[in-house]
Amino acid sequence: MAGRLLGLGVGPGDPELITLKALRLLRAAPVVAYHAAKGKKSNALGIVEQHLTPAQITVPLVYPVTTEKLPPHLCYEKIISDFYDEASAALAAHLDAGRDVAVISEGDPFFYGSFMYLHDRLAGRYATEVVPGVCSVVAGAAVLGAPLAYRNQTLTVLSGVLEADELKRRLAGTDAAAIMKLGSNLAKVRSVIDELGLTDRALYVERATMVTQRILKLADVDPAQSPYFSIVIVPGRKWKDR
Amino acid sequence: MAGRLLGLGVGPGDPELITLKALRLLRAAPVVAYHAAKGKKSNALGIVEQHLTPAQITVPLVYPVTTEKLPPHLCYEKIISDFYDEASAALAAHLDAGRDVAVISEGDPFFYGSFMYLHDRLAGRYATEVVPGVCSVVAGAAVLGAPLAYRNQTLTVLSGVLEADELKRRLAGTDAAAIMKLGSNLAKVRSVIDELGLTDRALYVERATMVTQRILKLADVDPAQSPYFSIVIVPGRKWKDR
Repeated sequence: MAGRLLGLGVGPGDPELITLKALRLLRAAPVVAYHAAKGKKSNALGIVEQHLTPAQITVPLVYPVTTEKLPPHLCYEKIISDFYDEASAALAAHLDAGRDVAVISEGDPFFYGSFMYLHDRLAGRYATEVVPGVCSVVAGAAVLGAPLAYRNQTLTVLSGVLEADELKRRLAGTDAAAIMKLGSNLAKVRSVIDELGLTDRALYVERATMVTQRILKLADVDPAQSPYFSIVIVPGRKWKDR
Repeated sequence: MAGRLLGLGVGPGDPELITLKALRLLRAAPVVAYHAAKGKKSNALGIVEQHLTPAQITVPLVYPVTTEKLPPHLCYEKIISDFYDEASAALAAHLDAGRDVAVISEGDPFFYGSFMYLHDRLAGRYATEVVPGVCSVVAGAAVLGAPLAYRNQTLTVLSGVLEADELKRRLAGTDAAAIMKLGSNLAKVRSVIDELGLTDRALYVERATMVTQRILKLADVDPAQSPYFSIVIVPGRKWKDR
């Protein structure tokens, strides 16, 4: 009897923002897998490690690369696809041996999470359950004290990796927005926001709900220091009549 | 010393999808307020009532109307604005008396939640904390087994109340979408999805994670029976190269 694949959202950073359900399934899982950058500690592991016991097998899944901008002879798509194939095979070995595998995801597993690529490879072959988590967008809004979207406003979630033209077009056409994946994209994103006259409405937070959280004025952010886990939120206008 | 205003996201419906933090603050709050439709039980209250004690004061905030479509002599904006003014005054009385007030929100407080209108009226006057919750969009994706948005895809959250033209334009221009507030808007939303050729990609769930949850093919939904708390998700294409 094969094990079950569990995708557990562990929330945006504050260990108290995990759900009762994710915590229960985490504690019961014989195998706990997590993604991590090379040489760095996994955020998801940091959120839950207080709950793990030595009896649980932990499986780090270490990204071979952490940027899409690679030298010309390297293909990001190929490298990362091979990585997810190998990671899936490693988890499948546990599942085949009858062990449930909990993959922990910072935020929510299906909201831009790496778990999606494992799910695409394994969910057809093994019983799978996904436990949703508090995602970074609502966590950012909460710590900024910024209601996101009112009534029938449209909320657009954008990646800071997009080209300036596309960012500008999409931001101009929405009522409310969240822009993720800032880091090296911060300067570009800020220019677009300036050009659209949205600077007064745009709010910025780094590592929302973590102990290292920082809230800054967007104008005051040093682009060289903006982490990947930062977010810009342009809240919907209050009481907009629509 | 005035009390604190707490906006607590209690998650999408499954009582186990509340966070540890929301539960801790809920249990400690002397006053618990919740929104409810006239004559109906509050979803948010149903999620947490097992945790409440008789010593806690509960404050129902009952909407005077539950649709924006009113007879011509009634103005929805005026009625609902007056309601939030009165609700805020009722909570302010507790806050002024030094009692913390926890307002419980289904899903997340700042993600199209009624708490936003209380926050707009009270957060400037009282110490306020918002605890983010698992919102309906990620909960829907989880139970549908549908990864929402990959890599740098754009995710658009839409209200089913929007006119067909606007829905069509916005859906056509995004990589992934979630459409909320269906109910009486279901037939219109389904037509738009059909016209755009998205029917094969669109997934539908009612009351995601509640015990009454139902997953149906969009084509099989009876528009007369679709509840307000249903959602259509059009997931991003897998491994789209962008």
